[in-house]
Amino acid sequence: MMGLWRQFCWRGQESAGIVTSDGESSQAFKVHKGMGLINHVFNADSLKKLYVSNLGIGHTRYSTSGISELQNCQPFVVETLHGKIAVAHNGELTNAVRLRRKLMRHGVGLSTSSDSELITQLLAFTPPLENDDTADWVARIKNLMNETPTSYSLLIMHKDIIYAVRDPYGNRPLCIGRLIPVGDMNGKGKDNSETEGWVVSSESCSFLSIGAEYYREVLPGEIVKISRYDVQTLDVVPRPEGDPSAFCIFEYVYFARPDSIFEGQMVYSVRKRCGQQLAIEAPVEADLVSTVPESATPAALGYAQKCGLPYVEVLCKNRYVGRTFIQPNMRLRQLGVAKKFGVLSDNFKGKRVVIIDDSIVRGNTISPIIKLLRESGAKEVHIRVASPPIRFPCYMGINIPTKEELIANRPEFHDLANYIGADSVVYLSVEGLVSSVQESIKARQENENSLKNHKFRVGKIGHCTACLTGEYPVELEW
Amino acid sequence: MMGLWRQFCWRGQESAGIVTSDGESSQAFKVHKGMGLINHVFNADSLKKLYVSNLGIGHTRYSTSGISELQNCQPFVVETLHGKIAVAHNGELTNAVRLRRKLMRHGVGLSTSSDSELITQLLAFTPPLENDDTADWVARIKNLMNETPTSYSLLIMHKDIIYAVRDPYGNRPLCIGRLIPVGDMNGKGKDNSETEGWVVSSESCSFLSIGAEYYREVLPGEIVKISRYDVQTLDVVPRPEGDPSAFCIFEYVYFARPDSIFEGQMVYSVRKRCGQQLAIEAPVEADLVSTVPESATPAALGYAQKCGLPYVEVLCKNRYVGRTFIQPNMRLRQLGVAKKFGVLSDNFKGKRVVIIDDSIVRGNTISPIIKLLRESGAKEVHIRVASPPIRFPCYMGINIPTKEELIANRPEFHDLANYIGADSVVYLSVEGLVSSVQESIKARQENENSLKNHKFRVGKIGHCTACLTGEYPVELEW
Amino acid sequence: MMGLWRQFCWRGQESAGIVTSDGESSQAFKVHKGMGLINHVFNADSLKKLYVSNLGIGHTRYSTSGISELQNCQPFVVETLHGKIAVAHNGELTNAVRLRRKLMRHGVGLSTSSDSELITQLLAFTPPLENDDTADWVARIKNLMNETPTSYSLLIMHKDIIYAVRDPYGNRPLCIGRLIPVGDMNGKGKDNSETEGWVVSSESCSFLSIGAEYYREVLPGEIVKISRYDVQTLDVVPRPEGDPSAFCIFEYVYFARPDSIFEGQMVYSVRKRCGQQLAIEAPVEADLVSTVPESATPAALGYAQKCGLPYVEVLCKNRYVGRTFIQPNMRLRQLGVAKKFGVLSDNFKGKRVVIIDDSIVRGNTISPIIKLLRESGAKEVHIRVASPPIRFPCYMGINIPTKEELIANRPEFHDLANYIGADSVVYLSVEGLVSSVQESIKARQENENSLKNHKFRVGKIGHCTACLTGEYPVELEW
Amino acid sequence: MMGLWRQFCWRGQESAGIVTSDGESSQAFKVHKGMGLINHVFNADSLKKLYVSNLGIGHTRYSTSGISELQNCQPFVVETLHGKIAVAHNGELTNAVRLRRKLMRHGVGLSTSSDSELITQLLAFTPPLENDDTADWVARIKNLMNETPTSYSLLIMHKDIIYAVRDPYGNRPLCIGRLIPVGDMNGKGKDNSETEGWVVSSESCSFLSIGAEYYREVLPGEIVKISRYDVQTLDVVPRPEGDPSAFCIFEYVYFARPDSIFEGQMVYSVRKRCGQQLAIEAPVEADLVSTVPESATPAALGYAQKCGLPYVEVLCKNRYVGRTFIQPNMRLRQLGVAKKFGVLSDNFKGKRVVIIDDSIVRGNTISPIIKLLRESGAKEVHIRVASPPIRFPCYMGINIPTKEELIANRPEFHDLANYIGADSVVYLSVEGLVSSVQESIKARQENENSLKNHKFRVGKIGHCTACLTGEYPVELEW
Repeated sequence: MMGLWRQFCWRGQESAGIVTSDGESSQAFKVHKGMGLINHVFNADSLKKLYVSNLGIGHTRYSTSGISELQNCQPFVVETLHGKIAVAHNGELTNAVRLRRKLMRHGVGLSTSSDSELITQLLAFTPPLENDDTADWVARIKNLMNETPTSYSLLIMHKDIIYAVRDPYGNRPLCIGRLIPVGDMNGKGKDNSETEGWVVSSESCSFLSIGAEYYREVLPGEIVKISRYDVQTLDVVPRPEGDPSAFCIFEYVYFARPDSIFEGQMVYSVRKRCGQQLAIEAPVEADLVSTVPESATPAALGYAQKCGLPYVEVLCKNRYVGRTFIQPNMRLRQLGVAKKFGVLSDNFKGKRVVIIDDSIVRGNTISPIIKLLRESGAKEVHIRVASPPIRFPCYMGINIPTKEELIANRPEFHDLANYIGADSVVYLSVEGLVSSVQESIKARQENENSLKNHKFRVGKIGHCTACLTGEYPVELEW
Repeated sequence: MMGLWRQFCWRGQESAGIVTSDGESSQAFKVHKGMGLINHVFNADSLKKLYVSNLGIGHTRYSTSGISELQNCQPFVVETLHGKIAVAHNGELTNAVRLRRKLMRHGVGLSTSSDSELITQLLAFTPPLENDDTADWVARIKNLMNETPTSYSLLIMHKDIIYAVRDPYGNRPLCIGRLIPVGDMNGKGKDNSETEGWVVSSESCSFLSIGAEYYREVLPGEIVKISRYDVQTLDVVPRPEGDPSAFCIFEYVYFARPDSIFEGQMVYSVRKRCGQQLAIEAPVEADLVSTVPESATPAALGYAQKCGLPYVEVLCKNRYVGRTFIQPNMRLRQLGVAKKFGVLSDNFKGKRVVIIDDSIVRGNTISPIIKLLRESGAKEVHIRVASPPIRFPCYMGINIPTKEELIANRPEFHDLANYIGADSVVYLSVEGLVSSVQESIKARQENENSLKNHKFRVGKIGHCTACLTGEYPVELEW
Repeated sequence: MMGLWRQFCWRGQESAGIVTSDGESSQAFKVHKGMGLINHVFNADSLKKLYVSNLGIGHTRYSTSGISELQNCQPFVVETLHGKIAVAHNGELTNAVRLRRKLMRHGVGLSTSSDSELITQLLAFTPPLENDDTADWVARIKNLMNETPTSYSLLIMHKDIIYAVRDPYGNRPLCIGRLIPVGDMNGKGKDNSETEGWVVSSESCSFLSIGAEYYREVLPGEIVKISRYDVQTLDVVPRPEGDPSAFCIFEYVYFARPDSIFEGQMVYSVRKRCGQQLAIEAPVEADLVSTVPESATPAALGYAQKCGLPYVEVLCKNRYVGRTFIQPNMRLRQLGVAKKFGVLSDNFKGKRVVIIDDSIVRGNTISPIIKLLRESGAKEVHIRVASPPIRFPCYMGINIPTKEELIANRPEFHDLANYIGADSVVYLSVEGLVSSVQESIKARQENENSLKNHKFRVGKIGHCTACLTGEYPVELEW
Repeated sequence: MMGLWRQFCWRGQESAGIVTSDGESSQAFKVHKGMGLINHVFNADSLKKLYVSNLGIGHTRYSTSGISELQNCQPFVVETLHGKIAVAHNGELTNAVRLRRKLMRHGVGLSTSSDSELITQLLAFTPPLENDDTADWVARIKNLMNETPTSYSLLIMHKDIIYAVRDPYGNRPLCIGRLIPVGDMNGKGKDNSETEGWVVSSESCSFLSIGAEYYREVLPGEIVKISRYDVQTLDVVPRPEGDPSAFCIFEYVYFARPDSIFEGQMVYSVRKRCGQQLAIEAPVEADLVSTVPESATPAALGYAQKCGLPYVEVLCKNRYVGRTFIQPNMRLRQLGVAKKFGVLSDNFKGKRVVIIDDSIVRGNTISPIIKLLRESGAKEVHIRVASPPIRFPCYMGINIPTKEELIANRPEFHDLANYIGADSVVYLSVEGLVSSVQESIKARQENENSLKNHKFRVGKIGHCTACLTGEYPVELEW
């Protein structure tokens, strides 16, 4: 079956929802939402009910602001004079409080605490309405973008059109994939006429599993109109003069899957470069380099390669973690997180070990691992962290612990090696991280389709390092 | 613990919700809603989370209009400039389409198809708002009541006040109960100073199970303010000159529990009088009178008493109905609903039986019962129905089958006895039903606390018989 | 589809199981068992898996002896030298301890505490086995019956034969129904040649719901062989000379559904006669007679008819009992069980009420009902119990509270009316109960097909009244 | 709390069970078993019920023989003349059919198809019983071991003793761990007096997660008695003269977790050596070596190290695999298993890739991965398999596909590289596998506590390679 399908795949785990449209009547939206993992929320019945066409938007939620309540589930749908619209949103508005108040002052009651409803009602409200017989949704979207600078990636569905929007700072990711027709696996079918449809996602890694291929990123400030027939840039809303873009650097460090592509580079490669940079910044005399499986593995391989030390596995994942049928005693509490791992002691007995971790947030994960390695025979345990310490809260969509909980803001940070029981601990510098991220962007910038050849101004490339430096890309409002 | 509690107990089975307030800050609402029976929606955890005070409103839904979707669950909560309000609604607005359009024209997006959200946004919207620093919720409620005449019973919660409202026609029920202090079971503690709190419910029968006693009905058009300290009538919004009230007569016939009290009379007594009236209108020469357990039993006892025939049980309920582990054959399909009953054949073998049923909607329940009785030895089976045939749809909150499905609108109705296999079938007349309902109201009217001693005009008492006669109490709008 | 089906329908609620046979190979049994209600244990998948033929036995369990463990679920299946057998059992062996010890002495390990496994292994074990090339299952069953006198009703399946067995005392019920061919609803098809198959059940009431009709009882001591083609009595194992049969009288009083038939009479009729007998034994000057819904209703109608007092409903069942969202206070605890009922106060205000109950076991059900009626306006409340007080434990399959818990063995029994708050309490006498039960058996005995016209001796009819009198039908072994 | 705990931790996923003993009365066993993963079978309630002491045995099942039915769940418990025994069993008896027949000939009905019940009844049955007033369980266990040579590892619990038994060929693993007292993490507390208790498991990897340390293996043929106070070898039942032991070589290759220890060596190290041996047997000119995550990683690191090629990651695991909301098309079916992985294309674009896999059973896993790598830019894809092809069924406890399903027995095996789309495919030789496994055993044999210093004969060390060679360690009976 030929068809057009668009999928909006966030990475969250608290709630999930899908809205489909029959593509003709704006009244004919089908909605299914629920709390929990996507596989619990949807079953054969609910999917069958949704399948009115191959047009729809979905959302999975990883809670940031807004309490985890059912009514906060996205996509958010409202009926307007000009038909229903459905909105899925990733991010967090930095001026949400002011915008909520503004809407309520006009008599709109807000039924949830979610930015998604706020955005949806702002789109519905935009005056002048009394004489507005034809809805100009693009004007409404631009109006919204002028009201709030960041952070949001949006999918907005109305009848048979989906608008994909990224805020002018490009803080949250959003990219477009192309469904490939059946049987075309060898490069054929790459011209537009054979495209089966389009999908939009936060992370490109989701394309492979649904038979699509990466097409391009939505640019910071870009409004893309996706119809059955094509993908078309309607406008690129600019940032204030001089402001660089501000894509979240934490996506590279920790949040995204390694096979995702942002700004023309694979996340895995960035992480590997971070490991290499860390080897330059903080070498150590040791016998082997290893990782805390499995997110830090690319950085560990990069570190090992740069240092010329062998890469060796010291822990294996314990897939069948569960309750233990023994009363928890002091020793078990001491081991704590170690239950999640098996120890490959033959691989490091009597050796000096460097462990690469991707980040240390609260410090209570790495400490028992170090203890475990020492008990199993490691002579020395050195920790190298492939990112700088997190010191500040994020107000743009990432759920970071409070300032008080962050290890970098606690007294023990001053003698961290001793506190966690390591022989040494060194973090990657902020400069080292930024250069590891931007090195390849600069190199590739001229060659990348997704960043050239358009009439619109994209501006200077930068990254949001607010959680590391406290320098937020826009002024925060309360 | 001393306290104020209010419960709003609809009789529905599709969804349930509770909103509680801490009674101080209008932001501090706790909400829990879900699809399904109340016992599935709530558990110890969700109730603990809700228990911020002894102030709250709840709702259970029996779907009428609005698709059975999660987002239609009540109570509906919105945040306004003047704090949050929560609204629970029973009924169906006859001019909902016009009111929705009016709100959307002002730029309010409506996220559900429910009248409950519509009412809530109407309360939030009411102008003039720009200069409105102090919210006058009573004015807003009166404004709402002027916009829509029927049908609604409402609970509206704001901070520490709950407003209980019944539409001017009194189409849906609403009554107030009083929580009795511990240990006062013999008439002591009946003065206000010892009241523990107030509860509000659609049906008074719910009071007994929570330790409360019936206090009084909310009157048609009445706005009652319930606070920790007292129950106070703020206003009674009048009907157009000459219009009688229009309480739903179907509540008496079928919907309400027999121990509920409406308009000063017990539902059971009304049903018994309907049986007596039926015996006058449609006597039959027979050996015994029986019932389809268990809703028609009061009418059957009334009929038997009036006729002087013995009341005998012919069916018993099969409590363990379930799947049968035999492939369904023609015989089983013929018996159909009979699986729900056991047959007490010794009680009626060789006898002429009168079966009283409370209503015949589609006709597919009574037919297999008659067959069953005949097969088990009944000599004659006469059906007497303790209500008139339903002929018209309800647009005021009762989920009645479509006109085409109603037995009274189908060709077979003209020879119904033959169609269902009975020796005779007679319905109660509309006049007989109305007089059975109103006889006792007239007699008791002067003596009832709930209907006298107030400064407000209540007007002439009538009943909505729209589903029987097609005469709707207000003009319908589309 | 033509076919033979047999269903064994106990009334339990703790576990359920079905075993089906393909009717040819004794290895091809399909088994599905589980804890919980039958509808939870079985679903479409498990039923499909079971459907190898139209031959099978099932069991639902109401725990008596044996802890409620999965491994005690029936039917019990074992493989023997002569193929698999499956056994379903209702009852409790009075000499189980001795028989278990005997088997274990021969080296058989018993994997459960259930009498069902014990019976199954006894059937498998019966010597001489070394030279036993052809299994004589009837000889094995007779051997079993000689080892243990009571109490058991059994279904034993081997290949395409089901043996239905009742112990010589007939303590537990067992009856046979006939599946009626499609379309024969008017008496046609009553000759054997048109029978679709046979079903066996503890209670005849289950036949109606699966399209079968009552055929006859299995007699005390009878071994019935049921094949695809016919129902055949193989033998009737006699009781010791002079011993009457001992069908459980509690089945009539309380346990069975009113539309079931035992010993040629409907349970409902026996209960009504108990009410009439009670009116003779214990009349009272009152205004009306009522019931605790719904099991005592036949007795109440019998009592009312005999006394000439009107039968009136005073309570209605509260179908939606659930948690109440109010903290339980003293008053609620005082009302207790009353939450399960609504009060029809208009029906008895100012009246003298006689309440008929079917039995009083612990006394904590009737007491709050009396309080409720008084609070709602009853002038007097008299309790009449349609059975004698239970004083002794049952060792034959009924789960009766311990001696200490039984109201009849407690000090407060001596002033019971005062204890429960009634104006008077009178129980039916043991003699009154026995004569109510046996009156109709004696009258009908000569006319009943199921009790005459066979070559086997059935002996004198009696009933087990052990729980009332302490006189057990056989000597108990420990 | 001081205490003795023993855990028997199989690796199965189909059912789970625990039996605990109060250590005094042999009647006081608590049993909880169920279908499904261990975390679904047990909850707080069931564990609380089980917690009568710190003595018990458990079992999780990975189905081999025996249909997946509830009644096959282990541990199996039977009551005998000498009290209850509970048995947990890993393996599959090669002469089960004859033993079943023997038991049934003696009149024992077998209620399940599981070897576990068979073993339990054999232990219960062992004559002479009539005069056997004191049960000699060790004699019964030795008798059982003489009846059946392999394959079984057993835990047998009676009162306060647990017997741990491994068959004379040592086909299935079994090892003992020691619970370490609280606070002793630095080598103190290693003498017996401070041991908190003992645990027994199939795999030593389970010890770490419950706070225990590896103590030693149970030897082939050994009967170990474990009491509160010590671990004592009662006997070692010998194999027929000349037979070597026959530990399952598949445990090393595929089944066990890499951090488990068998025969004194870590599984991870054996797998790494297999990779090194494979590099010697089947080198290839390429740019990089990688793995199918994650079980083949040790072999891949060994191969890379031996060849001097870089180890690089080419795939990442897709943790959130789920339904895709797009109709499956040809392309998705072609990709098939690839959905489980993300592709790190930047790491291998334009390169010649060697992929190490641990085994190829059906061939339908590796084929789509190769296709995926080629589509993503790999220049060449060579497959090296770190084990020989499986050609024969296992009758000793491993669930291997039928002979027809095994890739090595199918026509396409003769041109496998072409069939799966690889540039080349080479398997490890049987000799290479055996030498990789035995190299370290021979080296360490003299130094290992678990294999020296006992008075019993252990005999020559060998391994079961039946699934690779068809040479079974004992004659198979049917």
